Amino acid sequence: MTAGRMLVNGQPGDTVSANDRGFQYGDGLFETIAVRAGAPLLWERHLARLQRGARRLRLELPEAAVITEEAARLCRGSEHAVLKVIVTRGPGARGYRAPDDPRPTRVMHVGEWPYPLGVADAGAAVRICDTRLSSQPALAGLKHLNRLEQVLARTEWGDDFAEGLMLDFAGHVVDGTQSNVFAVIGDVLYTPDLSQCGVAGILREMLLERAAVLGIGCRVEPLPLDRLCNASEIFLTNSLFGVRPVTRLEQRTYAIGEITQILKKDLGRADATV
Amino acid sequence: MTAGRMLVNGQPGDTVSANDRGFQYGDGLFETIAVRAGAPLLWERHLARLQRGARRLRLELPEAAVITEEAARLCRGSEHAVLKVIVTRGPGARGYRAPDDPRPTRVMHVGEWPYPLGVADAGAAVRICDTRLSSQPALAGLKHLNRLEQVLARTEWGDDFAEGLMLDFAGHVVDGTQSNVFAVIGDVLYTPDLSQCGVAGILREMLLERAAVLGIGCRVEPLPLDRLCNASEIFLTNSLFGVRPVTRLEQRTYAIGEITQILKKDLGRADATV
Repeated sequence: MTAGRMLVNGQPGDTVSANDRGFQYGDGLFETIAVRAGAPLLWERHLARLQRGARRLRLELPEAAVITEEAARLCRGSEHAVLKVIVTRGPGARGYRAPDDPRPTRVMHVGEWPYPLGVADAGAAVRICDTRLSSQPALAGLKHLNRLEQVLARTEWGDDFAEGLMLDFAGHVVDGTQSNVFAVIGDVLYTPDLSQCGVAGILREMLLERAAVLGIGCRVEPLPLDRLCNASEIFLTNSLFGVRPVTRLEQRTYAIGEITQILKKDLGRADATV
Repeated sequence: MTAGRMLVNGQPGDTVSANDRGFQYGDGLFETIAVRAGAPLLWERHLARLQRGARRLRLELPEAAVITEEAARLCRGSEHAVLKVIVTRGPGARGYRAPDDPRPTRVMHVGEWPYPLGVADAGAAVRICDTRLSSQPALAGLKHLNRLEQVLARTEWGDDFAEGLMLDFAGHVVDGTQSNVFAVIGDVLYTPDLSQCGVAGILREMLLERAAVLGIGCRVEPLPLDRLCNASEIFLTNSLFGVRPVTRLEQRTYAIGEITQILKKDLGRADATV
């Protein structure tokens, strides 16, 4: 990261207070957003998720117009990049109690596109992580800054897999460390319920909407690992690569199936990612 | 916090990189330490816990001699204060994967003593938090930087209670937001098992050792809330106030019992807190 591509509370900079509750407690939220032709994609949806998360954490957000303007300013001139937005509860005194007069901190950073071009056309080899996700309805679905479970999971492999899927302690598949997961079983599309843990991605949300429009039956429910393994099609979604087929899960291989291709094509048009 | 009382990687300062994995993911550990007569109390034990936590997170710590010297330097001249030490995995590129060549970040801060003098002699009024602790053996016991559960719990009350106790989803009492809890039931001392969640405090560790030396029977096991409520004595421990009797739990009142007083006196000598 370089200071020139980062704004901290609207000013070029690359540091935050060591006193910030984001640093002290992970008391904040983030968004990871694809940038194309100088603009953040699906900005309204990312902003809406940030607002929903802030309500759940009772975290005061900066004005929507302010962060929208800053995001637009920072993305200008970037053809193909990633925008990361972090909002925290800001500096605090000692102790978990939130300040009476919080001054939220916002950090925006535009960085290099992390994937090879065309990554979503190449099938992904995926593993099952040993690190499990704990159940916490108060935080489930949120893209918050407490990410040690994902950090631990990511220590489990190197370059040999594109992603790792994480299970909860009941043995249900929840999501990937950086993506959501879908499976076609019979002619129904399944994606895990995220009411206990996991991050509810923007692309997941869009995909559920588009599947309904296209008449593809879709169910959101707990997904045991053996059900996933026996799916005819599996794919991942996130805001950067869109829809990415899984062609291998541990030792088992999968074809890039018809429903995956239909949704990939449809989402590709809808969000202009990839 | 003021820059003069803070060291960041050994230098006076009060900021960290916005790129630091502590800020991005809560990827780090901390210690909260009582300072008396210019020195951090129980430093060796705090350092040892930091090292144990680092091993579990596979986090590379700065040299023990370096952080010991910096802590000593920063505490010099402080009669009655709090030292907070934070160590993170340092700056990182995008993504959860740990850098191949990590440069850990250390932040040390000496701040004002947060309690009235003699706080541990005054009985504490304690509540039961609605926010539950999730079970995650991979992180249980660690004083790590993912503290959103405690932040949410602390939003539940204002000044009307000294502490809130948190339960797991099975209804067992785990710990307070900033303390561990002990209960005398019959003539046995109980403290919750922390293999699934909670923070294993330094004073809890010392107290278990001292109870054994003093011949007080002690059991570490899951503690259902109704068992706690029916205890004859309840007390809290942490590194700042030492042993603090609970005189009220929600609506129920408790006397400051004999075992509490014995341990309080004994620990007071052993660690010189309060």
